[in-house]
Amino acid sequence: MDSVRIGLIGTGFMGKCHALAYGAVKAVFGDVPAPRLELLCEMPADKAKTMANQFGFARSTDDWRELINDPAVDIVCVTTPNKLHAEIAIAALEAGKHVHCEKPMALTLAEAEAMARAAVIAKGKTIVGYNYIRNPAFQHARKLIEEGAIGRVIHFRGFVDEDYQADPDLPWTWRATKAEAGLGALGDLGCHMISMAVELMGPIRSVIGDIRTVHATRPSADDGTHKPVENEDIASAILEFESGVQGLFSTSRSAWGRKNYMAVEVHGTQGMICFDQERMNELRLYQNAGDKSVQGYRTIMTGPVHEPYGNFVPAPGHQIGFNDLKTIEAASFLRAIAGGSEAYPSFQQALEFERVIHAIANSNGQCIVL
Amino acid sequence: MDSVRIGLIGTGFMGKCHALAYGAVKAVFGDVPAPRLELLCEMPADKAKTMANQFGFARSTDDWRELINDPAVDIVCVTTPNKLHAEIAIAALEAGKHVHCEKPMALTLAEAEAMARAAVIAKGKTIVGYNYIRNPAFQHARKLIEEGAIGRVIHFRGFVDEDYQADPDLPWTWRATKAEAGLGALGDLGCHMISMAVELMGPIRSVIGDIRTVHATRPSADDGTHKPVENEDIASAILEFESGVQGLFSTSRSAWGRKNYMAVEVHGTQGMICFDQERMNELRLYQNAGDKSVQGYRTIMTGPVHEPYGNFVPAPGHQIGFNDLKTIEAASFLRAIAGGSEAYPSFQQALEFERVIHAIANSNGQCIVL
Amino acid sequence: MDSVRIGLIGTGFMGKCHALAYGAVKAVFGDVPAPRLELLCEMPADKAKTMANQFGFARSTDDWRELINDPAVDIVCVTTPNKLHAEIAIAALEAGKHVHCEKPMALTLAEAEAMARAAVIAKGKTIVGYNYIRNPAFQHARKLIEEGAIGRVIHFRGFVDEDYQADPDLPWTWRATKAEAGLGALGDLGCHMISMAVELMGPIRSVIGDIRTVHATRPSADDGTHKPVENEDIASAILEFESGVQGLFSTSRSAWGRKNYMAVEVHGTQGMICFDQERMNELRLYQNAGDKSVQGYRTIMTGPVHEPYGNFVPAPGHQIGFNDLKTIEAASFLRAIAGGSEAYPSFQQALEFERVIHAIANSNGQCIVL
Amino acid sequence: MDSVRIGLIGTGFMGKCHALAYGAVKAVFGDVPAPRLELLCEMPADKAKTMANQFGFARSTDDWRELINDPAVDIVCVTTPNKLHAEIAIAALEAGKHVHCEKPMALTLAEAEAMARAAVIAKGKTIVGYNYIRNPAFQHARKLIEEGAIGRVIHFRGFVDEDYQADPDLPWTWRATKAEAGLGALGDLGCHMISMAVELMGPIRSVIGDIRTVHATRPSADDGTHKPVENEDIASAILEFESGVQGLFSTSRSAWGRKNYMAVEVHGTQGMICFDQERMNELRLYQNAGDKSVQGYRTIMTGPVHEPYGNFVPAPGHQIGFNDLKTIEAASFLRAIAGGSEAYPSFQQALEFERVIHAIANSNGQCIVL
Repeated sequence: MDSVRIGLIGTGFMGKCHALAYGAVKAVFGDVPAPRLELLCEMPADKAKTMANQFGFARSTDDWRELINDPAVDIVCVTTPNKLHAEIAIAALEAGKHVHCEKPMALTLAEAEAMARAAVIAKGKTIVGYNYIRNPAFQHARKLIEEGAIGRVIHFRGFVDEDYQADPDLPWTWRATKAEAGLGALGDLGCHMISMAVELMGPIRSVIGDIRTVHATRPSADDGTHKPVENEDIASAILEFESGVQGLFSTSRSAWGRKNYMAVEVHGTQGMICFDQERMNELRLYQNAGDKSVQGYRTIMTGPVHEPYGNFVPAPGHQIGFNDLKTIEAASFLRAIAGGSEAYPSFQQALEFERVIHAIANSNGQCIVL
Repeated sequence: MDSVRIGLIGTGFMGKCHALAYGAVKAVFGDVPAPRLELLCEMPADKAKTMANQFGFARSTDDWRELINDPAVDIVCVTTPNKLHAEIAIAALEAGKHVHCEKPMALTLAEAEAMARAAVIAKGKTIVGYNYIRNPAFQHARKLIEEGAIGRVIHFRGFVDEDYQADPDLPWTWRATKAEAGLGALGDLGCHMISMAVELMGPIRSVIGDIRTVHATRPSADDGTHKPVENEDIASAILEFESGVQGLFSTSRSAWGRKNYMAVEVHGTQGMICFDQERMNELRLYQNAGDKSVQGYRTIMTGPVHEPYGNFVPAPGHQIGFNDLKTIEAASFLRAIAGGSEAYPSFQQALEFERVIHAIANSNGQCIVL
Repeated sequence: MDSVRIGLIGTGFMGKCHALAYGAVKAVFGDVPAPRLELLCEMPADKAKTMANQFGFARSTDDWRELINDPAVDIVCVTTPNKLHAEIAIAALEAGKHVHCEKPMALTLAEAEAMARAAVIAKGKTIVGYNYIRNPAFQHARKLIEEGAIGRVIHFRGFVDEDYQADPDLPWTWRATKAEAGLGALGDLGCHMISMAVELMGPIRSVIGDIRTVHATRPSADDGTHKPVENEDIASAILEFESGVQGLFSTSRSAWGRKNYMAVEVHGTQGMICFDQERMNELRLYQNAGDKSVQGYRTIMTGPVHEPYGNFVPAPGHQIGFNDLKTIEAASFLRAIAGGSEAYPSFQQALEFERVIHAIANSNGQCIVL
Repeated sequence: MDSVRIGLIGTGFMGKCHALAYGAVKAVFGDVPAPRLELLCEMPADKAKTMANQFGFARSTDDWRELINDPAVDIVCVTTPNKLHAEIAIAALEAGKHVHCEKPMALTLAEAEAMARAAVIAKGKTIVGYNYIRNPAFQHARKLIEEGAIGRVIHFRGFVDEDYQADPDLPWTWRATKAEAGLGALGDLGCHMISMAVELMGPIRSVIGDIRTVHATRPSADDGTHKPVENEDIASAILEFESGVQGLFSTSRSAWGRKNYMAVEVHGTQGMICFDQERMNELRLYQNAGDKSVQGYRTIMTGPVHEPYGNFVPAPGHQIGFNDLKTIEAASFLRAIAGGSEAYPSFQQALEFERVIHAIANSNGQCIVL
């Protein structure tokens, strides 16, 4: 396969990110099929045309059904509002396309399950946009753990916070509704940390969760009357992994000063690994090795020795950015398609992350076995 | 009262710390009674004499009963192994002394309750050595919260880790037994974080806890046969404060690289405060105020503006140390005694911290209301 | 102008960086002419063809003279070894092209001066690749200084270190020769810091410099015999800006652990700004304002409020990377060309940076007025 | 010798620090003579009496000549304003006392030379209060360098900043005059960094310095009229050590946000060591050793393995403070006196530090060989 033709639905935060990723991936990696930016869907049609011009897509449409049925499209990228993911992704799979869907998969677990079922019987490959696990620093953490650099793993802590819903005076939006947004912090942020936890620690067996809506109402932008916030601002949980190890989890969308805080600690019998996405090109490692007088956390800056950093920059410490993670993800999906193998995480695999966040949301302090 | 006569039992880590604190407190603060280092108890007698000479005590003994009944002793400092706290402290109270007891109060909740009951009917004042709440940086956090610097408090996270039991090859000791040590990480470390949580957030209403012994056995120093570890290496909990706010708590004595990690986050509707005892002269504050383009966590170095830092050093950023916290605590106790008021935390008050750690230890994933 | 056709010479570190930048710039910014990747030059011809395929160029050649004379090329990007910059850039200007040349301009000041002269009389625009001044965090520093956020500027310190020549056992290469490499650390690294110093502080009036070759020889890769290192590993200088303010400067290519350390401090009468490229999405600001008890350095994470960060990611703290800086630079050049204005820094302007590093190299402890 | 009797002149910042140090040193170290706080000198007499009571001195006086001639005084601690150091220290030496003098030695080099000459012929021992070199973290840096942990040393950078003279509106004081204060930032702060540089790097051969008074005048507290500032706010220098290694030095007393910034970098052929007194319990070390993928700066927290930290606290990471450094210094002096050896730095040795700061002050951009 020399070229893969991309159909992208959506031009927002993630839409642009996909456009940049598929636009750069061949130049960055070389050994992947060259994507052709074929068809862009946005509404209304003139915006679709304008954005296609900016993003470098050959054609545009305002009808996602047209896109998923276009014979010149191989991969459908779904970066719409979350509530549309399930319908579009399933339809695209039924139309025989490969589907690159943003996270969370859907508003409800039932929808996500339907997506996973559709993926099983479809001929197209699927992948969900858990981009943070692509970070070379994070993958290096995984590698170190696998190699035994910190001994036997005995404890995990993972936190993911932002502050986009921290201001009490922010107006009420669709984000506050279960019907439009589904879960709150768990769906936006928490699922990323679950993907990261599973990447480092393996599957989660059970959770004890507790969720809080700390801004019970928000003022309507129209008339200032307060309307209820239906989903959680904060969620915390005690986890147990299938390995038997205890984990701790917390997420907040109302944590002032946290912009993309995704802090992970993996405690081992011979060391500790810490990572925070806000310093995404750094990894902190403590090893109980050598002279005690010089033991300490070392701050490892990523470089070419941490693949695939070197595909972006051949010099260490120069740093990759957020958008580069999506490029790595796109490369992974292109390779899976070219090789006929499954991409990770497929819809079936990502469904497990959805199960966890919904279990936390529903736990109410009780242990839920997954 | 011009002078207060100190009787100190114990010359280990905390014994020396008390000796230094009561030796320095008058010079540091000026406005406290001048302690006289009267009588030191250690075993055997010749070690007691040697240490009395080193610490500057006038006399020594190898019999703690002699010390608590000595008419020339006003304050009894109890820095013995934890299993002796209850017997000595109660006897000292019954002998009419003021009692400065190290934490945790006792091995069992029943013992701690007995201590608190004894304190209620005694004429002496009591205080328990929760030294970390004395830190000017930490007290500044409290003050900022009280003044509304971060708005309404909506979430708390507190972690306390060390690595003194991280090495799997460390030999089995009395620390591993419930009979000699009582709780594990919760008793050594976790109770400090509870004292800090309550200081910033008010009382705790309920806990859902989960404890783990990750080093199930340790080798005997004698013959290398493995003997069981009876208490927890790691404990985690979801808390609810009486204010209704959710908190997250975790402690480990097996966390490599953590030497005195006591990390606190208080999330508010207008800001966030973070503190870590490993950088005990710093406080991190984020406020949603002013131009967005310059908002960020500020690292505040403690100085004379943060009382009572200036009693130690008149220049900011020069830093106080661990032992200075005990000096502040000693000043607080001396002032309470001189003024006829209660010290904080008295035995009754510190009992509440004990209740929390024992509830976490016994929770087994169930919610325990305190 | 709807499209600008790019001819790129070189496919190494900077060649790939240019390819990615011109490939992404339209999608990122929208309001720039859409570059067309027209012609790529590399040797030998088959490598040129392979890389053109990877980078997305329409055609390839192994002859840079062919490229600069190709009528379908508007901008010539010069990312060759430094010793070829002058000849190619001057020829390209003479051929009527716009020239985007990497730094340093040339091996010698005489060559750089010739380039600047050629630019003056050419109709094409010029720009030199001082990418670090494009960083939104760094530009925010400039803006804050201009707005008086730190009062009157009174002192500057700037350091730039890497460790790519730190290992004493690295084999001797062309980098060690004046004929092939020109200056050492000053040419590779130091000139970047000069560009940053001038950006924040204005022109430099004089320097007192001192350079050191700390690895006097290096082993030949052939036979291990040691050959001399002709240029400096370390250079330090006391600067005076035209404003009369004192500055301090140092650079090393042999500083272990430093990967892209570009640390800047600007001291003002009302505050301080600190920046380090190794944490390129952060800016540190101290202001003498408000309550003393909460003054401290604040760590500002860049976000959409710091233009043009938001063109890459609409959420703060998510981070841009090294390659994104070149995209900003490319946008700046495209806008200058489209608007008929000069780009910054043009050859004439960048020549001033060259003058400074050569003055430092030649100072030998004497004051050199520029 | 069982006891050494202390006579302290001064009760300000350093006076209190000496009182605390000599009060604690026996308890902390055990193996030193027990100091007796014998006589305190302050003016007026009633303040002397009050402070003697607070600090625990047996007697008080308002006449420093009485103190230095008191037969019951063995060590005279000189913590007066700097302009009195020379007269008092020389008189105390002539009276046969040991002298513990604060830094800088004197206002002028001539005075410092007279002090050193007096020390040579006196029978008493001398020491100057360069407390920062006592820090276990800093001494660990020295030890690592000596052991070759970073290979051959090739470069040094040292900076020392505070902000106590940063505010342009601070009133004019004696600090601004050469007659009362001598040097500015160099005398207050810079000399400390010279002591640290020499401790790590050996003697300094030559300097090229440049000093600046950035606040040329300050308002009189009386009538607001502006009076001139006669000494430097900022001083920078290029150093050459006797080893031939280049160093860089800068100090400012007008650096906002810097409270006790004393940042040191030692560059070696196999690694780098960094230290900053503002995080005085941490040392940063990079070593080119082991797998490249886990190389990074390690942050070493001081603990009992770094002597004499363990004399203060037996647990790592619990931290010593500023005053503890003076206690270590006092122990060093007591041991020298007890053992009949010289203390470090004696007046003769500290004179070398004075020579360096006066050379920087007088350099005016010219190289001065020491």
